[in-house]
Amino acid sequence: MPDASDTKTHFAGRFLNLVSKNGWEFATRTGSTGVVAIVAITDDDHVLLVEQFRPPVGKFVIEIPAGLAGDIAGSESEAFAEAARRELLEETGYAAASMRELQTGPSSAGLTDELITFFEASRLTKVDEGGGDDSESITVHAIPRAELRAWLTQQAASGKLIDPKIGAALWMAGR
Amino acid sequence: MPDASDTKTHFAGRFLNLVSKNGWEFATRTGSTGVVAIVAITDDDHVLLVEQFRPPVGKFVIEIPAGLAGDIAGSESEAFAEAARRELLEETGYAAASMRELQTGPSSAGLTDELITFFEASRLTKVDEGGGDDSESITVHAIPRAELRAWLTQQAASGKLIDPKIGAALWMAGR
Repeated sequence: MPDASDTKTHFAGRFLNLVSKNGWEFATRTGSTGVVAIVAITDDDHVLLVEQFRPPVGKFVIEIPAGLAGDIAGSESEAFAEAARRELLEETGYAAASMRELQTGPSSAGLTDELITFFEASRLTKVDEGGGDDSESITVHAIPRAELRAWLTQQAASGKLIDPKIGAALWMAGR
Repeated sequence: MPDASDTKTHFAGRFLNLVSKNGWEFATRTGSTGVVAIVAITDDDHVLLVEQFRPPVGKFVIEIPAGLAGDIAGSESEAFAEAARRELLEETGYAAASMRELQTGPSSAGLTDELITFFEASRLTKVDEGGGDDSESITVHAIPRAELRAWLTQQAASGKLIDPKIGAALWMAGR
């Protein structure tokens, strides 16, 4: 959330506000402290991806697991790693013995104050089916890392959108 | 822009609207057809980055050159490549003999319908100082590709934000 002092709220929604600061309009999420996104790589070198319909873009989007971080007691860094574990388990059904923080950056710095904290998850164990919470309908894909570029090209050709955060997280992780 | 049929506009700003579609709130830009982002690599293997203060996040952000694409006569693909050439020249002062389209993806598919089309620019010639148009104040950095990760880590440690699109574009370009 931006400083209230010099910020004007033009519309307050349930999940999103439209505000301006010194005349610069942007969107800001309500009710969360940030966003976490997780590139998860299995012991046999598969990358876990999720697919879901995204109303704003009106298409199915292939993404890395991601979600909102809430207000959890403890340090902000610990809370984000905890949120990353929760989101990974919820969306893919995998528990991670290792969750390494990579980098925090803006998703679209001219349009929103949203910041995404990236993690690399490894030493994974499948403990559940995944698929998201009750409000979500998520398909899980486990793609061999060596075949990922070709697979993404196929998916894009079939009309799906590919989230640039997939490549961003892999580059950050040195993969 | 989303379909008008099932979309409700809650606030219409100068640059950004807040709308909802079947109850899903999101931000949508006005007056542009898309966003282009360019990873530009010089013949001596330096990556061109831009730095500017971004009001929504309240910090200086290190990014690849990027900007809005307008309504230019001709095919949409040609228009985006043309916008990419313009933005690269305007922000960095470099003209590109090669502009290769990489991929189009959402910047934050739950929050906005914004789509970014990535390009890789090469065979560069410095023809101007760059720095953006009259409304922008942009610092240009040319960083040796082999030193890029270390340099970005230093920049983040000094309080700047690193745009994940840097890594996304390099990964897409196979760099």
